[in-house]
Amino acid sequence: MKENLARLFYPSSVAVIGASNNFGKLGYHVMKSLIKGGFNGKIYPINPKTDKVWEIKTYTSLEKIKGKVEVAIIVVPASLVPSILESCGKSGIKGVVLITAGFSEIEDEEGSKLQNQIKEIASRWSLPIIGPNTFGFVNLTHGLNATFTPEFSFLKKGKITLVSQSGGFSHLSGFMAMRERVGFSKIVGLGNRCNVDSPQMVEYLLEDPDTNVIALYIEGMDNPRTLFEIAKRSMGKKPIVAYKAGRSERSDDASKFHTGSLAGNYKIWQGALRQAGIFSVKDTEEFIDIVKVLEVSPRLKGNRIAVLSSQAGPGMIASDIIGIEGLTLARFSPVTQDTINEILPPLAIRTNPVDMGPAWYSPDAIVKILETVLMDEGVDGVLFLNMFASANINLAEGVRNYIEKMGVVKKPTIACFMAPPGIWDEEIEAMDNKKGMVFLPTPERAAKAMASLWEISQMFKAY
Amino acid sequence: MKENLARLFYPSSVAVIGASNNFGKLGYHVMKSLIKGGFNGKIYPINPKTDKVWEIKTYTSLEKIKGKVEVAIIVVPASLVPSILESCGKSGIKGVVLITAGFSEIEDEEGSKLQNQIKEIASRWSLPIIGPNTFGFVNLTHGLNATFTPEFSFLKKGKITLVSQSGGFSHLSGFMAMRERVGFSKIVGLGNRCNVDSPQMVEYLLEDPDTNVIALYIEGMDNPRTLFEIAKRSMGKKPIVAYKAGRSERSDDASKFHTGSLAGNYKIWQGALRQAGIFSVKDTEEFIDIVKVLEVSPRLKGNRIAVLSSQAGPGMIASDIIGIEGLTLARFSPVTQDTINEILPPLAIRTNPVDMGPAWYSPDAIVKILETVLMDEGVDGVLFLNMFASANINLAEGVRNYIEKMGVVKKPTIACFMAPPGIWDEEIEAMDNKKGMVFLPTPERAAKAMASLWEISQMFKAY
Repeated sequence: MKENLARLFYPSSVAVIGASNNFGKLGYHVMKSLIKGGFNGKIYPINPKTDKVWEIKTYTSLEKIKGKVEVAIIVVPASLVPSILESCGKSGIKGVVLITAGFSEIEDEEGSKLQNQIKEIASRWSLPIIGPNTFGFVNLTHGLNATFTPEFSFLKKGKITLVSQSGGFSHLSGFMAMRERVGFSKIVGLGNRCNVDSPQMVEYLLEDPDTNVIALYIEGMDNPRTLFEIAKRSMGKKPIVAYKAGRSERSDDASKFHTGSLAGNYKIWQGALRQAGIFSVKDTEEFIDIVKVLEVSPRLKGNRIAVLSSQAGPGMIASDIIGIEGLTLARFSPVTQDTINEILPPLAIRTNPVDMGPAWYSPDAIVKILETVLMDEGVDGVLFLNMFASANINLAEGVRNYIEKMGVVKKPTIACFMAPPGIWDEEIEAMDNKKGMVFLPTPERAAKAMASLWEISQMFKAY
Repeated sequence: MKENLARLFYPSSVAVIGASNNFGKLGYHVMKSLIKGGFNGKIYPINPKTDKVWEIKTYTSLEKIKGKVEVAIIVVPASLVPSILESCGKSGIKGVVLITAGFSEIEDEEGSKLQNQIKEIASRWSLPIIGPNTFGFVNLTHGLNATFTPEFSFLKKGKITLVSQSGGFSHLSGFMAMRERVGFSKIVGLGNRCNVDSPQMVEYLLEDPDTNVIALYIEGMDNPRTLFEIAKRSMGKKPIVAYKAGRSERSDDASKFHTGSLAGNYKIWQGALRQAGIFSVKDTEEFIDIVKVLEVSPRLKGNRIAVLSSQAGPGMIASDIIGIEGLTLARFSPVTQDTINEILPPLAIRTNPVDMGPAWYSPDAIVKILETVLMDEGVDGVLFLNMFASANINLAEGVRNYIEKMGVVKKPTIACFMAPPGIWDEEIEAMDNKKGMVFLPTPERAAKAMASLWEISQMFKAY
């Protein structure tokens, strides 16, 4: 089963059972995803009623395909699924994406029966199943979009893998990621978790060379202890971040409908996640931010942070969060302070937080301050904040030129550059996620992500 | 002074003292702001060294201008400012935007002396001064961009006025507002607050017909009691929202450099703001969100919220926040519940939060549920959450058609539609801020803004 799970994400051939030319059918969108997503392998649409789907020759059944088929994506009605799974097994298929709904998630007990039935079949054939009742998965590293959302292929390729119990959350965070330049390796919608749940996925992803950050969205789980044990065993190997929904008692009532139990134990969950070395977040933006930072940032080795801001206000806002969230404002070495004092006139505060205001129009000065502070041994991480104004329009380009020439940062460096739409976009795009630097949308989010990095560092140290 | 303050924001003629053709001078950018911002009144550039600035005939001094000049924007070096202010007074100018820095904000005590000097002159001539050491102000209602940032004219026109002690914060939130379709009447940079501070501005804005939400960014204040008294007297007339920086002791040290005192009294500030009926926020996004909602939303009369989500996960996330932040999930009336049960099959949860998943591709069904829930007397506010997927691409258009035909909502309705860049943008733009509905970027931000509305309602009720 384990080997097949790895194969499921990197197939060389995919059959779509229920492929369709009809926009109203999910089989239409799945085909579009595969084709527009640029899948390099072989695609076999299966549809007994038409010759071609999306210009590709169809087959009436799996058995009719001469070549080897490694993965099947199934979008036919639930009642047909058991027999199709049997033929998947017989045809040597290694894994299945079961998009079809109408299993254990429905009120009717027929649904649960059907899910038990397919679980038994899958187990007999060692067939890992993503789903049922899922949008599928996208593996950007492999150019494979096995979902009903072709737009997932717009995502930037990266090293983060999201494993989610909610399609809505996956779409929400995927689209946010597009706007905020966050790169994913895979997004996997677990659906009803027939035989692939978060523990199996984490175990696999810990070994997946294309994943360096594991991101989980969890509503409930039948056997969370397995997850905690796997995470604990591998503590620190790869960061694991979890958004656990079901924080309030009232939403618990709602979640019972989906997961049967668990959501009410939010506090117990929090303790267990922490003990397992899984970093817990409470907000989609916080989630997106910390996985983005973890993807490229070096480890934060201490909590002494420098705040460099080309305007006083955003520097103060960031310093507020530093003071509240367990970080401290670094005290610069005499050498650093002297250099800053040479660059900046005594018009503004030159100790930490540094108000770079008097030099805001000068990329050279701003970059020199950044460079100096990054070399200070008393500084563990840097927040680098620059808001656009017409007079400093060249700042982003100047910083970009510097960053393109410099080596990878040895300390976490989180930037916030805010400008009107269309201005600085290109420069920010060119700098973001490069050289270990990450750009976030507000000073608060930048500072909070730094605080999260520190919490993660401490969590790993504790074991 | 009060009358002149009103005149300052709505002049028919403006002189720019220090207007320039040189990109490196702020006088260049100020001229660009006035011209590109589409100011309808007369512009008089003053520069003794050149005939024309930005193609407009220059004058050597204020006295040489034949027509009436109502407002002067000053960008010449600090040492020249006292004599210029005298001539402003003599020329009958009603108000001044003093962009020049080098007054009380600098370490050198010359700066404070100079500021006292201009304060005395201004007082003698009843001249309200915005600044010194400010980016200026923009009045979108009047087409007047009196700042060194021409891009402020890209802002959507609206009914929110931001009064800020930080230029950096004003730029940050202004640019965020552009991205998130938040409309401003005015953004005012107070700078060193020579004789116009938050209290004077709030007093003026309470009477300003173009402002219905007052937004304050505060670092410190010499006499905050005046502000609290003004706000308390007018409790509930217009909502006032404040972002008070200086939350941590460490950032306090930094802020002393600017404001002399105060930041350390954060808790005292919080209590005083609340008693004065000023809603306090702790984050730039929270700030932008709540002023956006307050601008068009009806008052939230109770805390019973309906969560309608076309995907279960985002509905659960929003319900979590409802449970935590003092709101409750509304219990639908039998009529409402029956109607929902007719529309949705028993595949998903149909009580609150409503998982509209089974009808997600059907705008008619989604809109019918929204309509029904809005009419339920047991519902005080609605969260309306819809994430894009390829199969529901027509949803935004369908909802838009409905919203364009419907009347103004009688209950706060906050939506979150998330899609890849370029998809649904037009529809969201067409719906946002219309008919009393507001769109926010995440389910969490939507739910938190609803909770803020409830806190504001209760605060007003308490007096």
